[in-house]
Amino acid sequence: MAHIDLPEGLPGIRGPMAFRPETAKPLNEFAEILLRADNTLSRADREVIGTYVSYLNDCFFCQNAHGGLAQHYLQCDMPFIDSMKANPETANISEKLKALLAIAGSVQKGGKHVTPRQIERAKSLGATDMEIHDTVLISAAFCMFNRYVDGLGTSAPQDRMFYVNRAPARAEEGYANYNPHS
Amino acid sequence: MAHIDLPEGLPGIRGPMAFRPETAKPLNEFAEILLRADNTLSRADREVIGTYVSYLNDCFFCQNAHGGLAQHYLQCDMPFIDSMKANPETANISEKLKALLAIAGSVQKGGKHVTPRQIERAKSLGATDMEIHDTVLISAAFCMFNRYVDGLGTSAPQDRMFYVNRAPARAEEGYANYNPHS
Repeated sequence: MAHIDLPEGLPGIRGPMAFRPETAKPLNEFAEILLRADNTLSRADREVIGTYVSYLNDCFFCQNAHGGLAQHYLQCDMPFIDSMKANPETANISEKLKALLAIAGSVQKGGKHVTPRQIERAKSLGATDMEIHDTVLISAAFCMFNRYVDGLGTSAPQDRMFYVNRAPARAEEGYANYNPHS
Repeated sequence: MAHIDLPEGLPGIRGPMAFRPETAKPLNEFAEILLRADNTLSRADREVIGTYVSYLNDCFFCQNAHGGLAQHYLQCDMPFIDSMKANPETANISEKLKALLAIAGSVQKGGKHVTPRQIERAKSLGATDMEIHDTVLISAAFCMFNRYVDGLGTSAPQDRMFYVNRAPARAEEGYANYNPHS
């Protein structure tokens, strides 16, 4: 049971967002720009970063909701997402994305954990300043969203296929017009 | 030196916000609603929560920028802010705010650290569901802002009076129309 009286039947972040639409609106506009707007990082890359950080923060709802989106964009299977989360360095992803995930993983621990060496590695593999900026901000943002979801004690469907099955519609809907009741 | 090429002479979050105005806009709208809009938690209470979480995350810029605002709203001195950060339970603040800071401190560690007992304590001292929600979200939001500031290796003035002296103008300006260049 959630720590506060949230609207019924809305898993994960949907309960708090329905409870507090005033803050949900700019948060969803922020997510739309950061995770979906035109960018040299693909939507898949950005959802992979969010999924990885949510995994590190042990947020079941977020790692599955965003893992489902990453799976949809990549047209891959769940074991691929799971192996990427468990060890990005050995996953079948680009070297640049591995370098960005290393930065994201440091940000998850705390901003000061990012090292000049991690930044140099990403730049040597072609990452731009904007891509590094967005990686840091995506990781930081998921450190917020994960804490929002778990800090209020929300519940989440345990069947992981729930998230995979919803992903195509979520990808279609986007974040800006996100309706927590739908 | 920052990890990426940020605009010159803008300390802390101001550099990244000037670098990426597209994400700064909804972030500042979010901060305005969460930290300044009408609320049964005072602006002072909300800045105290943000200051405490920034202290726990060891973010020098944020704990001083928001500590300066808290000091301005409370019309107190810097030692008061410092003692509140170091040990809220013995500080001269309301029992309700102490209970909310305990929740904020748990959220800083990770959402799952919030305990039913912490929630019961806050409720028994009169905290509403909305106040608990906002406390969780403020703490989560500062876990993002702190990582954004430090994850990009931004610099910050070391003279703490810089922040105290700026606070009245920052309180006047608010977040929604925040100009990182000013």
